[in-house]
Amino acid sequence: MADAGKSIADQIKEQGEIVRKLKAEKAGIDKITEEVSKLLALKAQQGTDKDEKAGGKFVLKTAKGTRDFNPRQMVIRQQAFDKIIACFKRHGAETLDTPVFELKEVLTGKYGEDSKLIYDLADQGGELLSLRYDLTVPFARFLAMNKVGSIKRYQLGKVYRRDNPAMTKGRFREFFQCDFDIAGPTDPMIPDVECVRVVTEILDSLDLSEHVVKINHRKILDGLFEACGVPETQFRAICSSVDKLDNSPWEDVRREMTDEKGLDPEKADQIGQYVLRSGQDDLVEQLLADTKLCSSKSAVEGLEALKLFFRYAELYGVKKRVKFDMSLARGLDYYTGIIYEAVLTNQNPEEGVGSIAGGGRYDNLVALFDPKAKAVPCVGVSIGIERILAILENREVNLKMRTVETQVYVAAAQKNLLEDRMKICTELWDIGIKTEMSYKANPKLLGQLQTCEEQGIPWAIIIGQSELEKGVVKLRHVVSRHEEEIERTKLADVLKEKLSAPVF
Amino acid sequence: MADAGKSIADQIKEQGEIVRKLKAEKAGIDKITEEVSKLLALKAQQGTDKDEKAGGKFVLKTAKGTRDFNPRQMVIRQQAFDKIIACFKRHGAETLDTPVFELKEVLTGKYGEDSKLIYDLADQGGELLSLRYDLTVPFARFLAMNKVGSIKRYQLGKVYRRDNPAMTKGRFREFFQCDFDIAGPTDPMIPDVECVRVVTEILDSLDLSEHVVKINHRKILDGLFEACGVPETQFRAICSSVDKLDNSPWEDVRREMTDEKGLDPEKADQIGQYVLRSGQDDLVEQLLADTKLCSSKSAVEGLEALKLFFRYAELYGVKKRVKFDMSLARGLDYYTGIIYEAVLTNQNPEEGVGSIAGGGRYDNLVALFDPKAKAVPCVGVSIGIERILAILENREVNLKMRTVETQVYVAAAQKNLLEDRMKICTELWDIGIKTEMSYKANPKLLGQLQTCEEQGIPWAIIIGQSELEKGVVKLRHVVSRHEEEIERTKLADVLKEKLSAPVF
Repeated sequence: MADAGKSIADQIKEQGEIVRKLKAEKAGIDKITEEVSKLLALKAQQGTDKDEKAGGKFVLKTAKGTRDFNPRQMVIRQQAFDKIIACFKRHGAETLDTPVFELKEVLTGKYGEDSKLIYDLADQGGELLSLRYDLTVPFARFLAMNKVGSIKRYQLGKVYRRDNPAMTKGRFREFFQCDFDIAGPTDPMIPDVECVRVVTEILDSLDLSEHVVKINHRKILDGLFEACGVPETQFRAICSSVDKLDNSPWEDVRREMTDEKGLDPEKADQIGQYVLRSGQDDLVEQLLADTKLCSSKSAVEGLEALKLFFRYAELYGVKKRVKFDMSLARGLDYYTGIIYEAVLTNQNPEEGVGSIAGGGRYDNLVALFDPKAKAVPCVGVSIGIERILAILENREVNLKMRTVETQVYVAAAQKNLLEDRMKICTELWDIGIKTEMSYKANPKLLGQLQTCEEQGIPWAIIIGQSELEKGVVKLRHVVSRHEEEIERTKLADVLKEKLSAPVF
Repeated sequence: MADAGKSIADQIKEQGEIVRKLKAEKAGIDKITEEVSKLLALKAQQGTDKDEKAGGKFVLKTAKGTRDFNPRQMVIRQQAFDKIIACFKRHGAETLDTPVFELKEVLTGKYGEDSKLIYDLADQGGELLSLRYDLTVPFARFLAMNKVGSIKRYQLGKVYRRDNPAMTKGRFREFFQCDFDIAGPTDPMIPDVECVRVVTEILDSLDLSEHVVKINHRKILDGLFEACGVPETQFRAICSSVDKLDNSPWEDVRREMTDEKGLDPEKADQIGQYVLRSGQDDLVEQLLADTKLCSSKSAVEGLEALKLFFRYAELYGVKKRVKFDMSLARGLDYYTGIIYEAVLTNQNPEEGVGSIAGGGRYDNLVALFDPKAKAVPCVGVSIGIERILAILENREVNLKMRTVETQVYVAAAQKNLLEDRMKICTELWDIGIKTEMSYKANPKLLGQLQTCEEQGIPWAIIIGQSELEKGVVKLRHVVSRHEEEIERTKLADVLKEKLSAPVF
C-alpha cells in the first residue's frame, strides 16, 4: 500500500512501478488488474483534485461496472466471437436481434430474487422501459410476438445487471452473452445434449479444454424436496439456498435453510445427504434404486431424463465432460428441466475456476407472453464471454498483435509528392488493397518507414521525383528491407500478385 | 381505411389483403411498411382487447421506436456490415468499443437543441447515466481518458434518441451507426477528403452509387453571418434555422429567423442570397471574389479550405460526387470545420431521397474532456445504416435467401436409427462440417428431405438398416436429387472433397 503521507503524484509513481514490475514478471491477470485498478483510482483522485482546481470538471471515467475495449482487446474479442459463431452455424443456427431495452413488464417476474438488479430507464413520459437482463427473455418475447413455433437461433449481445461489479473477476454491469437456443417440439433430450456439445466445441476451439459441464434437473431437485418433506411453497426458496453451495460450505447453506427460511433441521439434513453428491450415470442408477427419493414421481422422471442424457452424451462424444452435480440449482425461475453450468477445471491460478457458461430447459417461458398461453418448449445455453476474454487477453499479453490490416503504405522520399501519393492510394483503394499514407504534406522518409515497421505493414511503396519521371517506383518488403524497382504502370498488378501469395 | 363499424378481426383480414396485394405488386417499401404498420396497429388493438379479457396481460410489443431483426434481415444487415467494415479496414482503421451508457455529464452540453432527446436511466442509487446519443462523444471521451493523441478508428454500434419515430422512413429510437474517424494532427484537408472517399466507397459497394455528398464549412457559415451583420451570440441560433432549409422553403426559414429569433429582415434577406446557392469549386471561386463575404476573415479561411478540398477530392476520384451546398448546416454543436451529408439522388420513389451519412470536423470536442484541455483535432463520418437496410431489404424482398449455412443433413430412411444419426453428426461436427438432423427420434423420410429442399441444404446423407450393415450410406445431392452409394468409412473424406469443390 502506498503511504498516505505521500503526495498523490508520488503514490501514482510508486503504483506505476508495481504494475510495470508485475507485467515484466508476467504475473497473473487478476493480480495485474487489481494493481492497475489501484493505479487508476489514484489517477482518478488526482484527476478530481486537478479538475476541482480547474473549476469543477467531472471525473473522467466510464460508468461503474462498465469499460471500454481498446483495439487490441477488440481483435481478441472478434477472434473469439468468430469461433463461437462458427460453432453455432455448424449446428444450423440462424441469428436475430432484439432491442437493448424492453417494456418493463416484459422482464417483470422472470428472474426471481435477481429482479432487483434490473436497470430501469427514467420515466421521461411514455413507456416504462428496462435494459435487458439476459437474451433469453427477449427471445421468448420474440417467439410469442412473431408466433414462431420452431427455430434454432444464436444471438450475441450485451446485457445489463446492477450487480456489485468485481471487474478483476470478470463480473461487469455491462457484459456480452453468446446464446444458442433450440425452440420447438422435439423428442426428449436430443437438443438438450446438443447444447452441451455446443459448449464443449466452443471451449475446445478457444483452447479451454480443461472444463467440465455440471448438469442437474429441476425435476430431480423438486422431487428431492418433495421426498424430504419440504412444503411445495418453499421449493423455490430452498432451491435458491442449494444454489449457494457453489460458493458456501454446507453448514452455511443449512443454516440459511433452517434459521432464515424456517425449514425443519431434520429435513435440511436429509437434503444434505443428497445435494453434496456428484457423479455420472452411475449416480443416476444409484438414485433410481433409492426408494426414498423414488417415492417422488418428479424425481423418477428427472432421473430417467438424465439416464437418456448420458446415453446421448456418449454418442455425441461429450460424456467425459459431463458431471451430474446435485448441488447445481441455477438462480433463474424459468428453468423447467435440465440445467447446465460449465466451469473451468484448470489448476492454473491465473485462469482460476469459474462458471463460464450456463443454461437449461425452459418450456413455459414463451407461454407467459402468448395471449393464448401457447407453450413453445425451449432449451439453450449462454456463454459468458467476459471471463473467457480475460483469460485470452492474459495469454496473449506478450504476443505482438496487429490491430490494423493495412497491406501497403505509400511513402515519399522527398517533399512535394503529396498529390502523387494520393493518386497511388486511389489506384490501390480502387482495386481493394488496404492502403495508407501519412497525413502530413511533407513527411520524413524515416518516420514513414518506422510507421510501417511498428504497424507490421508488409509492403511500402517509396516514390521519388526522379523515379516518377522515369516511370518507376520502389517496392520495399518491410520485414526484410529488400527493395526492388518496378514500373509505375505495373504497380497495381505486381501488388495484387504479391498480396495473393502465401503469407511470408 | 377499414370501416370503423367492422369488427377488429374483419379489419385485420381486410388490411392483410391490402398488404398481400402490395407485396404481390412489388410496391414501394414505404407504402408496404405503412400498410404493415396499420396492420400491426390493428393486431395490437386486438391483442389488447383479448388480453384484457384474458385478465390483464400486457400488449406484446417492442418499445416504441425499436424493432426486432429477424434472421433474414440479419443476413442482409451482416452483408452490409461486412462491406462497410472492409472499407474501413482498407483505409487502415482499427476498432474499439464503448459502453452503451455514459455518465450523464459526459453527454451534457454536446448536442445543442437535441439534448432533450437523450435517454436517461432511472436513478436507482448511484451514478446518473444516459444512453449514448451517438458514437462521437464517447469516442472523444475515450481519447481524453486514455490520452490517445492519434488514431484512425471505426465503430459500429447502436445509439439512442427519444425522437418522434417515423419507422416507415427509417427513423428509429434505437438505430445503428457505423462511424469512421481520424484523430490527431494532420496537414489541412487530407483526412477530411478521405472521409468523403470512405463514404462513396461504401455507398458504391452497396450499389447505392447514385448519391451526392453535400459539403459546407462552419467557418463559411460563421463568416457569412458575420458579413451579413448577425450578432455573434446569434450565430448558432441562425445556423440552426439554416439547417431547416433541408425540409422547409426559404420563406419559412426566413420567418423563423425574423419572427422567432428577432433577426433584422434585411439581414435575413442578405443571408438568403447566399444560403440557397450550391455548386462545386466554381462557386468557391465566385465567393472568393465576393468582396462582401470576403470582408470576413473566417469566410476566406473556410473558402480556401474548400478550394483545397476540391483539389484533393479530384485526386481521390470523388470530386464528381461532391456538391458545395451553402444551406448545409448540421444540427450538432461540436463541428468546427468541414461538414458533410450524403444523400441519395436516385429518382426511384421506393428508395427516396434522404440523408444516409453525415459528419464533419470537430477539433475542440476532446479538449472538453481533458483536464488540461488538450485538443485532439478530429474529423469523421457516420453512416446511418437503417435507411440503407430498408432499401436493401426491399431490393431483395423476392430473393430466395438462406439464413442458415448447414451443408449436410443426416436423414434416416426407417425407424430406430437415431443413435446412428447422432454418430454421423458427431463425426461431421468433429471435422468442422455444418451438419443438422431432425430432433425427432423417428422422423419420416419425406419430411426430412423436404427440410433439405426448403432450407437449401446442399447434401443429405440417408441411412438405412441394411445399408449400414453392408457398410454403406446414400449421399443425395439435394437440388438434382441424384443419389450415390458411398462407403460409410469414407463418408467424411468424400464430404470434405465435395464441400471444398466450387459452389454448384
